[in-house]
Amino acid sequence: MEKILSPALIVDEDRCRRNIRHMARKARQCGIGFRPHFKTHQSLGIGSWFRDTGVDRIAVSSVSMANYFASGGWNDIMIAFPLNVREINLINQLAAKIKLSVLLADAFALNYLETGLSNRLEFYIKIDVGNRRSGFNPDDTESISHILEKAASIPHLVFKGFIAHAGQTYLTQSLNEVQKIYNTGTRIIHAITTEYRKNYPDIITSWGDTPTCSLINQFDLIDEIRPGNFVFYDLTQYLLGSCDLDHIAAVVAAPVVTRQPGRSEIVLYAGAVHLSKDVVSIPDVGKVYGEIVRFSPDGWLPYPDPVYLNRLSQEHGVFACPHEYLDDFLPGNLVGIIPVHSCLAADLLRHNKYFNLKTGEFFI
Amino acid sequence: MEKILSPALIVDEDRCRRNIRHMARKARQCGIGFRPHFKTHQSLGIGSWFRDTGVDRIAVSSVSMANYFASGGWNDIMIAFPLNVREINLINQLAAKIKLSVLLADAFALNYLETGLSNRLEFYIKIDVGNRRSGFNPDDTESISHILEKAASIPHLVFKGFIAHAGQTYLTQSLNEVQKIYNTGTRIIHAITTEYRKNYPDIITSWGDTPTCSLINQFDLIDEIRPGNFVFYDLTQYLLGSCDLDHIAAVVAAPVVTRQPGRSEIVLYAGAVHLSKDVVSIPDVGKVYGEIVRFSPDGWLPYPDPVYLNRLSQEHGVFACPHEYLDDFLPGNLVGIIPVHSCLAADLLRHNKYFNLKTGEFFI
Repeated sequence: MEKILSPALIVDEDRCRRNIRHMARKARQCGIGFRPHFKTHQSLGIGSWFRDTGVDRIAVSSVSMANYFASGGWNDIMIAFPLNVREINLINQLAAKIKLSVLLADAFALNYLETGLSNRLEFYIKIDVGNRRSGFNPDDTESISHILEKAASIPHLVFKGFIAHAGQTYLTQSLNEVQKIYNTGTRIIHAITTEYRKNYPDIITSWGDTPTCSLINQFDLIDEIRPGNFVFYDLTQYLLGSCDLDHIAAVVAAPVVTRQPGRSEIVLYAGAVHLSKDVVSIPDVGKVYGEIVRFSPDGWLPYPDPVYLNRLSQEHGVFACPHEYLDDFLPGNLVGIIPVHSCLAADLLRHNKYFNLKTGEFFI
Repeated sequence: MEKILSPALIVDEDRCRRNIRHMARKARQCGIGFRPHFKTHQSLGIGSWFRDTGVDRIAVSSVSMANYFASGGWNDIMIAFPLNVREINLINQLAAKIKLSVLLADAFALNYLETGLSNRLEFYIKIDVGNRRSGFNPDDTESISHILEKAASIPHLVFKGFIAHAGQTYLTQSLNEVQKIYNTGTRIIHAITTEYRKNYPDIITSWGDTPTCSLINQFDLIDEIRPGNFVFYDLTQYLLGSCDLDHIAAVVAAPVVTRQPGRSEIVLYAGAVHLSKDVVSIPDVGKVYGEIVRFSPDGWLPYPDPVYLNRLSQEHGVFACPHEYLDDFLPGNLVGIIPVHSCLAADLLRHNKYFNLKTGEFFI
């Protein structure tokens, strides 16, 4: 790790590959499709680890990410974000090269496709199964049917099915709650799909979110899962119960810059521009920005009494350190931080700051 | 603005230049130095607007930022962050080319300079004037003298003075509080500087943070100001009282992607990867991620009844919209967002996503 001079994302390839294999196997055993969301890692290198398990279709969250992965040979890509009609020309260009699909969550967007679409484009309709972010209410069949009627008149546009993201699982406290969200949500989306299959026999249902895909072992009523975060997991997922600590496959390496012995605090070179300002609440501790870990010869280890990153500004991270450990944190030493939200930390560090623990090399 | 297809930072050059001129003039009138912190904009283009007012020295917060600005012709740069000794070789290389200074806030770091320094390097000692992040307690003269003694034996290392960052001003509610923090902090750092001037007659005191530099008009007891955020300002600074709404010089442009008429919400393509997850609390409103503004022919305008961005995930931003305005927010329209923290939004969008309102062109 001597090559690491400034904050970097340390990726444990073995753990990543294990997370990927585990999820791929679960989907296979349930006889459903696996379209991992690549917005978490945004890396062609890590993408190749998915390909090694037979993955041939992916989801991303922007047109530029779709272009990036298409340039790396991926040719079945869903942009799992409500269609941004301002990028219609870029979408046309990419749709000429690969099998591309988008989400529709507002009928107005069809006006742009009507006049602007020049290549085959598949679309899914987003259904809100309780997350209250985007998507149609499941009982709003008037809007859904309106979209399908209008879409049928637009050349090149092909309806593929319904999609849901049960993001409300991030607020749960127990497996029971996750199971309930899964049961309710999949019943909703299955009912709609069954209804519209009368006219569109080949449509599928696609289901996202790492908590349900990690905790549910029997995927009924859906045809495809689309989790993303599970490739790395993070502190939020651990606290939710989606993973164990030893499934977490990426930590941020941060150089110690100063000790504040008077108040037993350590200041790290790792701030909001490396970790994001996402926080999570720990009972009896309060809001934290990450968990501090020690690097060991074959990875990293949490402290027996967990140590959390307490404060964060643009480039500084500060944590309270038991007085007797102060000398372990000398300026120049590297400390690991399990991020609260690995998707955001990875997004911040993806520009030449991914480091493979196994090979000891930076990669992209 | 038709060129803007995805989230971008819209920079109002006239307002930026006015903010820069105003701060430069204030420093000049007080007879002190002006070393603006460039971590906010991180842009050679905006740097040139500073140069137009006569600025010839800057602060940055990382070695890579120092290298970037050195490549653009800046040759007096302070890395205003506790020395990261892991980057000593990069620091040596840069110190061979320009006048470079660093901060010391832990004596242990001198061990690396002792063995590794090969070019002239200036340093400042960080004093904690109440921010409780990094720096020496002002009464810890033992540590300060220890650093100076050790530094005196290290070739190429030159003591330049004391530095403070009164970040606690970000938590204030009134000009009165800011004035108190300024008075107390500058008295502290002035006393130390006066003490050590006996042996180091040429040392100076450098003072940072946008709230004090904006609100205080008479800079006594210090020799240099080092604000950064004021170039753009943001919602946090406006709520603190550091600026008026029409001083805010940058907003994030976000395409509308869907309307959720059932609950009068609008979903924007603008999330944590564009704005950061920084929040600010507004009385009677709660935590918000930004303020929504309308683009007008010559810039942007807030709504008479302020509209705030209420929820934020990786790429989605959601706000509650008065029902009668729903049709103003059609998918494909661009909406402006005053960021909570412009430094973080700018950091996220600096890769080819700065757009000059005046020229109608992207720039870096």
